[in-house]
Amino acid sequence: MISNLINKIKEKDAPVVVGLDPMLSYIPSFIIDKAISEYRETLEAAGEAVWQYNKAIVDAVYDLIPAVKPQIAMYEQFGIPGLIAFDKTVNYCREKGLVVIGDIKRGDIGSTSEAYANGHIGSVTVGGTELSGFKEDMVTVNPYLGTDGVKPFVDACKKHDKGIFVLVKTSNPSSGEFQDRLVSDASGDEIDDVGDVAALDGVALGDLTRGGKPLYELVADKVNEWGSDCMDGDYSNVGAVVGATYPEMGAKLRKLMPHTYILVPGYGAQGGTADTLRPYFNDDGLGAIVNSSRGIICAYKQDKYSGFGDAGFADASRQAVVDMIDDIRSIF
Amino acid sequence: MISNLINKIKEKDAPVVVGLDPMLSYIPSFIIDKAISEYRETLEAAGEAVWQYNKAIVDAVYDLIPAVKPQIAMYEQFGIPGLIAFDKTVNYCREKGLVVIGDIKRGDIGSTSEAYANGHIGSVTVGGTELSGFKEDMVTVNPYLGTDGVKPFVDACKKHDKGIFVLVKTSNPSSGEFQDRLVSDASGDEIDDVGDVAALDGVALGDLTRGGKPLYELVADKVNEWGSDCMDGDYSNVGAVVGATYPEMGAKLRKLMPHTYILVPGYGAQGGTADTLRPYFNDDGLGAIVNSSRGIICAYKQDKYSGFGDAGFADASRQAVVDMIDDIRSIF
Repeated sequence: MISNLINKIKEKDAPVVVGLDPMLSYIPSFIIDKAISEYRETLEAAGEAVWQYNKAIVDAVYDLIPAVKPQIAMYEQFGIPGLIAFDKTVNYCREKGLVVIGDIKRGDIGSTSEAYANGHIGSVTVGGTELSGFKEDMVTVNPYLGTDGVKPFVDACKKHDKGIFVLVKTSNPSSGEFQDRLVSDASGDEIDDVGDVAALDGVALGDLTRGGKPLYELVADKVNEWGSDCMDGDYSNVGAVVGATYPEMGAKLRKLMPHTYILVPGYGAQGGTADTLRPYFNDDGLGAIVNSSRGIICAYKQDKYSGFGDAGFADASRQAVVDMIDDIRSIF
Repeated sequence: MISNLINKIKEKDAPVVVGLDPMLSYIPSFIIDKAISEYRETLEAAGEAVWQYNKAIVDAVYDLIPAVKPQIAMYEQFGIPGLIAFDKTVNYCREKGLVVIGDIKRGDIGSTSEAYANGHIGSVTVGGTELSGFKEDMVTVNPYLGTDGVKPFVDACKKHDKGIFVLVKTSNPSSGEFQDRLVSDASGDEIDDVGDVAALDGVALGDLTRGGKPLYELVADKVNEWGSDCMDGDYSNVGAVVGATYPEMGAKLRKLMPHTYILVPGYGAQGGTADTLRPYFNDDGLGAIVNSSRGIICAYKQDKYSGFGDAGFADASRQAVVDMIDDIRSIF
């Protein structure tokens, strides 16, 4: 799957992904009003508005980009009708030739992660028939439960030629609270055996914590491990999420995971800029794909694109994609 | 909400929760066959089979227990029809007077977690109408993204009198891979300033890592912090998940989080036993609720309950609940 994504990135000369994360407050009122007139003030109306909004944006930008990343939470908040809009969006984007990255951040104990993997990038069997619940090409995965929570997703990648991006260092302000903590290579139980440290006088603190490193680096090591038998060309089908908002860590993680594709959220509205993005890429110009959500789908509300008006919201999104691609190309 | 759960636990004298985590392989063939005869080999058939199976079990056990915990992955794997079965299950259990803990393990950046919180334990507004996507009473939350990923759930607890259980130490075999790592109180950036440790000669290694502790304890500290302004009687609406499979850590975490209700998965099929559960409870006999999923809903496949036969699967579940409650009561 990652080779498929790379081919599309090369074809469009655009290592960008558009985040389809619709909030009702983003959607022009004429779309909302029409949906409400048809479905009254219901979850169905919300789902319909989201779907019509997405469809117009996808129609306006699909030829420019390799991939989209719908954030499932923005659909799930509207219950079943919202998830129907998610499903329609995923299927429509795939019909348009886009790689669909489901931003689902799932992760659980083994048997449960297997159900998530089956449901989003694999299949289930009913009677004698193999069926797919949702049909993304790739999904994001939360690693907090460790290898047995991630492995079922890796297995699904192998079996169905799909891909995942494991959360390594997220873009949000408090991501460092746990992810940046220096961790020991030893677990709590082992460390009790160490006793005093007189013998360690003069040793660097990093060594004292037995190769102590930030938690995100330990997760990165695991991403390498999980991805090593899941290669698809020069890159692995097991990728990583590293936020644009932490460029120094991005540079470090790029080196630590040379064969890992990095999905980079946080560009644009969250504060990441093109001049800090170069380190996320390898020298081959590959290795990273940069996401923008609000900055694209809600472009018409920015002063810069206000000339498009509410009615031209999709054209505003197209212009914002053109501008983003120019911006990203400028770093090479 | 936690006081509501506690009242029901006292009323039933049963600190247990039944995990409604249906796999198709658990469901008696007569239910599957009927669903397939009606809906052919489709996702709708799977959803219908899951719903009929759940309904029979809930009807057989609801008077014995305070709460259920449907694991959303087991429904999500069947796409929209599966999630319709989840929604029906949640609503039916609430009608039966049960507290419904949605085992969703969501967690994302702030704005996205807010959407999840709105969708599961809060509300959305469409036009001028306040609506709920899904309608759980409590949900599980993944803390990997830090405070701003958890806060929206805490806010929803306050606003809507709901509850959450934050993953602290999960029950799965590889949970220690990240959760047990000794962490420093310092972040990676700070630690670079420390230089050599000559001056630290003789200091305990725990102090060297500046109060170094396992990551799960750091998460526990945060659970205390998040929960402190969300009290509902003696306990907080912000609870914690600590697996039955790690009783020593359970004992430690019980002491570290005196006002936190602990949801304890891993009893039964995953290997946890009653004699190791006492430390999860406070001296008031409260503070913990023990989950069993497979051990209850798939009881009829165990030798012990095989006399019930396939047709008596729900009665077997009832007997398994009775036995589990007796087992848990025996520890006091």
